[in-house]
Amino acid sequence: MQRIFNLNQHDLPTRWYNIQADLDRPLDPPLDPRTQEPLSPEALTALFAKTCVEQEVSTDRYIDIPPEVQETYRLWRPTPLYRATNLERVLDTPAHIYYKYEGASPTGSHKTNTAVPQAYYNKLEGTMRLTTETGAGQWGSALSFACQALGIDLTVFMVKISYQQKPYRKAMIELYGGEIVASPSDRTDAGRKILSENPDSPGSLGIAISEAIELAMSTGAKYALGSVLNHVLMHQTVIGQESLSQMEIAGEYPDAVVGCVGGGSNFGGLMLPILHDAQERGRKVEFIATEPTACPTITKGEVRYDFGDEAEMTPLLRMHTLGHKFVPPPIHAGGLRYHGMAPIITRLVEDGVIEPRAYDQVDVFKDAVLFARTEAIIPAPETSHAVHAAMELARECARKDEKKVILIGFSGHGHFDMSAYNAYLAGKLVRTS
Amino acid sequence: MQRIFNLNQHDLPTRWYNIQADLDRPLDPPLDPRTQEPLSPEALTALFAKTCVEQEVSTDRYIDIPPEVQETYRLWRPTPLYRATNLERVLDTPAHIYYKYEGASPTGSHKTNTAVPQAYYNKLEGTMRLTTETGAGQWGSALSFACQALGIDLTVFMVKISYQQKPYRKAMIELYGGEIVASPSDRTDAGRKILSENPDSPGSLGIAISEAIELAMSTGAKYALGSVLNHVLMHQTVIGQESLSQMEIAGEYPDAVVGCVGGGSNFGGLMLPILHDAQERGRKVEFIATEPTACPTITKGEVRYDFGDEAEMTPLLRMHTLGHKFVPPPIHAGGLRYHGMAPIITRLVEDGVIEPRAYDQVDVFKDAVLFARTEAIIPAPETSHAVHAAMELARECARKDEKKVILIGFSGHGHFDMSAYNAYLAGKLVRTS
Repeated sequence: MQRIFNLNQHDLPTRWYNIQADLDRPLDPPLDPRTQEPLSPEALTALFAKTCVEQEVSTDRYIDIPPEVQETYRLWRPTPLYRATNLERVLDTPAHIYYKYEGASPTGSHKTNTAVPQAYYNKLEGTMRLTTETGAGQWGSALSFACQALGIDLTVFMVKISYQQKPYRKAMIELYGGEIVASPSDRTDAGRKILSENPDSPGSLGIAISEAIELAMSTGAKYALGSVLNHVLMHQTVIGQESLSQMEIAGEYPDAVVGCVGGGSNFGGLMLPILHDAQERGRKVEFIATEPTACPTITKGEVRYDFGDEAEMTPLLRMHTLGHKFVPPPIHAGGLRYHGMAPIITRLVEDGVIEPRAYDQVDVFKDAVLFARTEAIIPAPETSHAVHAAMELARECARKDEKKVILIGFSGHGHFDMSAYNAYLAGKLVRTS
Repeated sequence: MQRIFNLNQHDLPTRWYNIQADLDRPLDPPLDPRTQEPLSPEALTALFAKTCVEQEVSTDRYIDIPPEVQETYRLWRPTPLYRATNLERVLDTPAHIYYKYEGASPTGSHKTNTAVPQAYYNKLEGTMRLTTETGAGQWGSALSFACQALGIDLTVFMVKISYQQKPYRKAMIELYGGEIVASPSDRTDAGRKILSENPDSPGSLGIAISEAIELAMSTGAKYALGSVLNHVLMHQTVIGQESLSQMEIAGEYPDAVVGCVGGGSNFGGLMLPILHDAQERGRKVEFIATEPTACPTITKGEVRYDFGDEAEMTPLLRMHTLGHKFVPPPIHAGGLRYHGMAPIITRLVEDGVIEPRAYDQVDVFKDAVLFARTEAIIPAPETSHAVHAAMELARECARKDEKKVILIGFSGHGHFDMSAYNAYLAGKLVRTS
């Protein structure tokens, strides 16, 4: 039985898909927090590469992937699509389960898909230095790799507690040549302020974002963000485009597409091209976004304009939010501990296209272990939320004797998160709901 | 430019290649240490699966891969072949550099290629419990995965210092369902004896082998070994067979094949089918086996009968050896810290087919970092020895303006060895030569 569906490298997508061309009404613009007026592109280009800002508001359906970006994508893309036949057998389900494996990226997650074009456009525009923040470390690793590939300097502010708990992620960021700073740090006013009030602060993503933005603004560098924004989701659409070609090789079409959402980029990258394709074909597909009950941004948050960071330095975005001061419990899926959501995902939830579901990490890890024991690949804690949801769907298919084709967005492997599995296997994982 | 050369799953090899059919004189048999006489197959089957013992002495050129083993191989095989164009560019070399990426295995190394058939044959013969040892953790992870896939129990004795230093490897072994015991332990006479003499013993591979064998013999379990033996090298020949097909797709033929050798199985698996093919085609290929100067088994050892373990419980094998009491310095390439060598590799070195080269870990890591920064994939410390040797060859090609096609046996990724990179980047890696 064929389990792996590979594409050839000449089948790599040559353009990104931009959902903004197909929305029935435009997304609400980012607002300037001081004036509450729509932010000018000029204000955004102080922070981000000009091309990324143009892409952020573009309504072109397709945007060409620059040849240089395609060339770097070819270090690992196209990524494989797997059929999870062992898992189907163990679940005794008539469902067919596929997963698109972004763990094949050299840094182990989908984040490289946007890291490379962001680094590329910055370099093209003469920016030779970027700053960013990282929580779980996946984004920091990806951007460090991309900056190394493009020959740009990078400073990564890593949430201090993660910096201490994940020495291997730190090593990976440094191996690719990125400078890494534990946040809060004495490198910025924002960091020094926190440290003077609380020298033992473990840091937070909100603080790290503030530090990264401040360093960029004060040193003529630019800032790069790994999720949430429209252009980031668009860069990720290589995932969904490849998946459509691979499902075609497998002779199937997804009835349900399942992903995990922190800021929403891996799920967006998978589901947006499939949504467009399904609409063109007149097919009905379920799109399921999974999140932790410990950080239930969509399932419990409200939709309103809010800041992207705790220190209120970002523009205001209209999105699902738990409030920018919300501090989620220290669950192991660090990449899902974010108070906000991509405006595109928010819109599609409002329109009834995407159904959100929240799960407790103990249930999630239980299924992640079963997945690893049957399919061999170890899911990242974030990815495990999507895996669990798909397994729940497949069990429902078994109960109803319903054949359904389920496609999982497998955002990354768990090689750098084995301490979470250690905790689960030792019975030390805490239920948060 | 095409960088990844994939095979389809129906191109997975259906048989292993057995070099013993093509040796001009048979290998010297294993000896019983008490009688110094050739060991009977019966004596070996007390320890190993009967089919593995048959394969150990077979002179059939090809042995069919059981369909059940092929089915499990399909979880990750065929593995990709990469062309390292970025590395070629940085080295400014006319050489073409390819690497066969066994890191695509779910446990991150080539070890799964033999773990699966060994578990399969044991189960087929009614053995439901295996024991083994692991040093760096790659073999323990691979056998744990294979035993989980086949439904067999496994106890892994992990060298205590590795057990303490590599909690993520321990987590991986447990995640796949294997029982893991820090060695020396109180589970065996051998372990208890060591502990009574030295309660703080950090353990060694020799001690762990003794414990695993003792537990197997005393509980009706069987023992599995991850390298050195003929059947283990044979199981690995899927690597070389796939590589030949992939090089053909790339339109090239290797002039030099480079691998690292601990016990010799990954290099044997790559080079044996290529040696056979090259002989049939009348082509000349360089085969280069790399090892650490800290454990220079081939380059400094002598060829004689010796034990495989420190406690003298194994049969005697005629091989390159540094002496079974040799304790190598604690270099980071744990998988290359072995005093002996596969008898097949020893023979081919004696025959002038394989050229051995030894390198210091500091030089090795320097090139591993350059590899990661250009090719993105992070080599395991063991693999880095092969990478360094290939880069040295490519530099020589640049000096001589010589075009050479170099194929690297990329035995595994370094995700579980990032502490070694941390040490290198911090300037703390110790030169041992």
